[in-house]
Amino acid sequence: MKSPVSKVAVGVDLGGTSIKAGIVSTGGALLYQNKFPANADGGPSKVIKQIAASVRDALEHTNGANVKGIGIGAPGVVDDEGVVKGPPNFMDWDEVPLKAKLSQLFPGVTIGIENDANAAAIAESRFGAGVHLPNFLFVIWGTGVGGGIILNHKIYRGPTGGAGEIGHISINYTGPQCNCGNIGCVEAYVGQRYLSSRTAERLKSHPESKILELVGGDPTKIEPMYISQAAHDGDALAREILVEAGEQLGVALAAVMNIMDLRISIIGGGISAAGDFVIHAIRDSVVRHVLKPLRKDIQVLPAQLGNNAGILGAAGLVL
Amino acid sequence: MKSPVSKVAVGVDLGGTSIKAGIVSTGGALLYQNKFPANADGGPSKVIKQIAASVRDALEHTNGANVKGIGIGAPGVVDDEGVVKGPPNFMDWDEVPLKAKLSQLFPGVTIGIENDANAAAIAESRFGAGVHLPNFLFVIWGTGVGGGIILNHKIYRGPTGGAGEIGHISINYTGPQCNCGNIGCVEAYVGQRYLSSRTAERLKSHPESKILELVGGDPTKIEPMYISQAAHDGDALAREILVEAGEQLGVALAAVMNIMDLRISIIGGGISAAGDFVIHAIRDSVVRHVLKPLRKDIQVLPAQLGNNAGILGAAGLVL
Repeated sequence: MKSPVSKVAVGVDLGGTSIKAGIVSTGGALLYQNKFPANADGGPSKVIKQIAASVRDALEHTNGANVKGIGIGAPGVVDDEGVVKGPPNFMDWDEVPLKAKLSQLFPGVTIGIENDANAAAIAESRFGAGVHLPNFLFVIWGTGVGGGIILNHKIYRGPTGGAGEIGHISINYTGPQCNCGNIGCVEAYVGQRYLSSRTAERLKSHPESKILELVGGDPTKIEPMYISQAAHDGDALAREILVEAGEQLGVALAAVMNIMDLRISIIGGGISAAGDFVIHAIRDSVVRHVLKPLRKDIQVLPAQLGNNAGILGAAGLVL
Repeated sequence: MKSPVSKVAVGVDLGGTSIKAGIVSTGGALLYQNKFPANADGGPSKVIKQIAASVRDALEHTNGANVKGIGIGAPGVVDDEGVVKGPPNFMDWDEVPLKAKLSQLFPGVTIGIENDANAAAIAESRFGAGVHLPNFLFVIWGTGVGGGIILNHKIYRGPTGGAGEIGHISINYTGPQCNCGNIGCVEAYVGQRYLSSRTAERLKSHPESKILELVGGDPTKIEPMYISQAAHDGDALAREILVEAGEQLGVALAAVMNIMDLRISIIGGGISAAGDFVIHAIRDSVVRHVLKPLRKDIQVLPAQLGNNAGILGAAGLVL
């Protein structure tokens, strides 16, 4: 008796800088991975060429497994027809029918496209921290704050595919201006740029902080990964800043819990890797800010798939 | 050839003070209506007795039409089994299996139970301002701020039936304490009690306002209906207060639009009756606070069914 042919999918994580493609098994194992420059400043046709190159390379590493399809996680809004709209940092890219274009390049192959935060949410749902959780909010906290909503084990896309934009919930309508035009967005408190400049400000009165050392003494070089690293190593200022940011993020997450009747948040993205204390700070804040009947069931969990969530979730679209 | 037997349902709007039951046609016509005291301070068995009395009275006014069932809109959280949990202002009412109790009293009759804000949302969706709108947020703005979310013409209940609690979205995490324990809830800005006390405060420097006259010179008697009435009659202070409140409400609605990828809000409840200028103030605020791709499609519409939304939506549960 022959063993059944094993099945895999190609997962593609399309970013503004690089394109990562991988071969993923039905169980969520990443069997191969590559990385190509995105050429995002060359316009859509250049980017599509790079996607095709990364996919073709991946397809040469299937070890004879049956390929179920190609899944793509893309920034911007992705509509039901696989049109990718307004991805930040992609030149001349208003609306591109990426699914149709790739179908031409890979005729007969099943192609799935989803927003990148949604793809990462799907990854955590299928292979990560959310495997046994039918309903949760996935949060990606890094450069900005994004989200993906899992309802009954499926992604909630909303009527036009734009759901989950939790970064632009205002937590203070008298607060600071956000890039998006709104006032007091949670991203304007805890997103990379804002967090970095707030840290630079605080360093003036905390020259002992390890953060300064990590950026070679240049406060303009501060990025969340350094704050996160310093906090991980026990730096007091770094921890104070991240706990405060976790509390602010929790206010926005509590709004989502109240509106959608959810209890669980899974936190991914670079900053969440700083340590358990960030997760605890977020959880304490959510508990304090949700309605009473929800409080006892609130859970805030770290994501499990790290940087691979994008590829895994993209593959999950067609697996 | 006989004409088909016309079909109706009994709709029950359970409130803390009174129970209103009516006979509703499949087209949403309210053919008969009664009103009974709720006896909410007498405990669940007294309330259930009153519900049964109101239903029996309504059933005597069907004019021979075929009754499809009994629908109830109830305050508090209503779970999938028709258990009503923690309705405010109901004595000794923690969790009551209202559906099961009424099934015993009306054996063989289809019974539907839903949260009252959700029932009103269903009413606007089936018979009111939302008939042609597959997706919208219904807002009930009166004593508090409640909501019901319609997705693809159906109510979104969430995993445990508690969805749509938009009143406790914090619009300022450094703002005033809300009754619910959270800080800066939109209800703590625009709910009845808060709006009334803010108005009383402002009246000290605006003795010319018509509001004072409407409450017989006693600022402790201020209720939103008087502010609303004064605004309707052109009173400057009343309009200023309601426009400000509309702007604050808009911040919370924008969060819902961003999170769920929605574009349309339908505003019901007592205060929304003040006039178009309130609706315009809410709309302006939502447009300013949502993400750019949503802005051009934002609509804020007044509800169409007024006080009858509760009965109509309850009937809609079984029609």
